[in-house]
Amino acid sequence: MERIPILQVGEFLIVSIQVDLHDRLALRLQDELTSQVVKTRAKGVLIDISSLEIVDSFIGRLLNNIASMTRIIGAGTVVVGMRPLVAITIVELGLSLINVKTALNVDQGMALLRIMVNSTIEEGSDEPDNR
Amino acid sequence: MERIPILQVGEFLIVSIQVDLHDRLALRLQDELTSQVVKTRAKGVLIDISSLEIVDSFIGRLLNNIASMTRIIGAGTVVVGMRPLVAITIVELGLSLINVKTALNVDQGMALLRIMVNSTIEEGSDEPDNR
Repeated sequence: MERIPILQVGEFLIVSIQVDLHDRLALRLQDELTSQVVKTRAKGVLIDISSLEIVDSFIGRLLNNIASMTRIIGAGTVVVGMRPLVAITIVELGLSLINVKTALNVDQGMALLRIMVNSTIEEGSDEPDNR
Repeated sequence: MERIPILQVGEFLIVSIQVDLHDRLALRLQDELTSQVVKTRAKGVLIDISSLEIVDSFIGRLLNNIASMTRIIGAGTVVVGMRPLVAITIVELGLSLINVKTALNVDQGMALLRIMVNSTIEEGSDEPDNR
């Protein structure tokens, strides 16, 4: 089972990370996710990490990377379902999730993504007026 | 990571099975799924099996059980993302997914669930007229 499924729900993609991510699998997830965003014209990516008991620097970097990559393509990324203990560990370890926005659950993550998407579109549509 | 996350998306619950299901984990998934349906008042459950390379009689029974249980509570279940080879194996092995409805992907599964939910409500609302 060397593949993390990417589920399309309307204009969003949902990824639930449940297995230990080794280098190759993480790289594959990045590739497939960016391809899927382009292919499905998704406006946002939701990454569920409620199964993860540990978020180390490797996972932190992966989440940052995915968020940066999808943002360049034009989609937002929200990480959902972080366990309280994981949040504590992240702060105590001094890990930085700079590019990553978080929400409590998928529904709230979707709401956040909709706000992000709308604000991006508004910023974009303002541009012609400024010229 | 001894837990399969159940994601709430609007009025539906999405479960993506990515790990090998042993007896205890399968039982836990059944329990949690039925509890979540009641707790969240979900109208449907989507089970993504796109990660599964094999669906044997054990998984088949699990899917049948979950579908039967959620139906009794009042929610529909649709299995999505089945690989072509898995479909072939299911037919060749003579496995019966009696209670389980299937769809190609999550979006189509949600559409199917909406039709199922609406037809159930209509059936229910017809009853008073027949008396």
